Amino acid sequence: MTQQTSPHDLPDVAGLTLGILGGTGDQGKGLARRFALAGHQVLIGSRDAERAARAAADLDPGLPVRGADNATVAREADVVIVAVPWDGHRATLESLRAELEGKIVVDCVNPLGFDKQGAYALPVEEGSAAQQAAAVLPDSRVIGAFHHVSAVLLLDPGVAEMDLDILVVGDDREASDMVRALAARIPGMRGIYGGRLRNAHQVEAFTANLISINRRYKAHAGLRVTDV
Amino acid sequence: MTQQTSPHDLPDVAGLTLGILGGTGDQGKGLARRFALAGHQVLIGSRDAERAARAAADLDPGLPVRGADNATVAREADVVIVAVPWDGHRATLESLRAELEGKIVVDCVNPLGFDKQGAYALPVEEGSAAQQAAAVLPDSRVIGAFHHVSAVLLLDPGVAEMDLDILVVGDDREASDMVRALAARIPGMRGIYGGRLRNAHQVEAFTANLISINRRYKAHAGLRVTDV
Repeated sequence: MTQQTSPHDLPDVAGLTLGILGGTGDQGKGLARRFALAGHQVLIGSRDAERAARAAADLDPGLPVRGADNATVAREADVVIVAVPWDGHRATLESLRAELEGKIVVDCVNPLGFDKQGAYALPVEEGSAAQQAAAVLPDSRVIGAFHHVSAVLLLDPGVAEMDLDILVVGDDREASDMVRALAARIPGMRGIYGGRLRNAHQVEAFTANLISINRRYKAHAGLRVTDV
Repeated sequence: MTQQTSPHDLPDVAGLTLGILGGTGDQGKGLARRFALAGHQVLIGSRDAERAARAAADLDPGLPVRGADNATVAREADVVIVAVPWDGHRATLESLRAELEGKIVVDCVNPLGFDKQGAYALPVEEGSAAQQAAAVLPDSRVIGAFHHVSAVLLLDPGVAEMDLDILVVGDDREASDMVRALAARIPGMRGIYGGRLRNAHQVEAFTANLISINRRYKAHAGLRVTDV
């Protein structure tokens, strides 16, 4: 008799150490904060180790967050989140290919441009930031996730639960299940499988729409997937 | 003293007659059914008037739905929804330019391809189906909406409320507010402003992700926008 598995079953990821490349920006710091509150050891990475240490020190006292240079973070972490600015995306990942070999790499970068009318999606040669990461890191397990989460809410001590689902895109089932499980470690969040990597572009680009929604409704909007 | 307006304020659209081009497909029929249940006169359009009449007759008896050829529907309806297959999109709209002049045209077409790995977004010269409609119909008021709604649920007599938000994209505030109000006529739905027409592509393309989600979770998934 085979065991029934549900698409909602999640692996145990409680003991994983998480690294966040470009973790000194608000989204990186916010994710570091929430994962540390959930009990994970978190390493904030930056080109400049001092700056990373200062970012870690900015967070709530006593959290298990340390700062280090990006290469150290990529080497020491079990799962590595990429939260660098889009214009440094390719070069940062190219420089860390060896350290990231065999690891789950979670890309949450949104290639966006801004003008007077707001945000818009930038064209990406490989189709999306996540696909660019996969092309640059052929020996890593690249997943796209955490694109839509509000840095403001992640960092807000008054927000106990995050009211959104994390769309997790990727071609590696085991890796995407791990990332779904990581999302579920943050109270309020669910990690919902959102399709293959070739359908990452629209998830990244939708952040431009969320920026428009936030402006119109004075909100920190996120998405929930219904009937799931 | 000026009156306060909220982004949630909606115009009164109760008396509008709606036309649905390509209304013989499941999504078109489903939208016709729900808008008729909400009290709207609905015209289902097809290249073939007989076929349109049969589609109207398929729906619940007594609903205020009639069938006609696309040109008649475009001429007689107050607001026209475009639900044609993607491969006939440009030609259909080009042929109806005169009839659609000055009208609100709501594009809900998703340019998708399908292969063994599921659905994926097709490239569109103008950026998106909605932008193509705007390019072909310079004298119409083109809005994108109703991309993600499940035809199965629209047509299901056991489903009283639709559990999703309709993302409404467009550059004409009055027109997008009208379409938001139309979405709100269907129980359970909200119409949420989702950004400018240049950000329509990712809303259309996200339908490919919803198809992946539906397959994985055996669901009829939709989206809700949180904090709005």
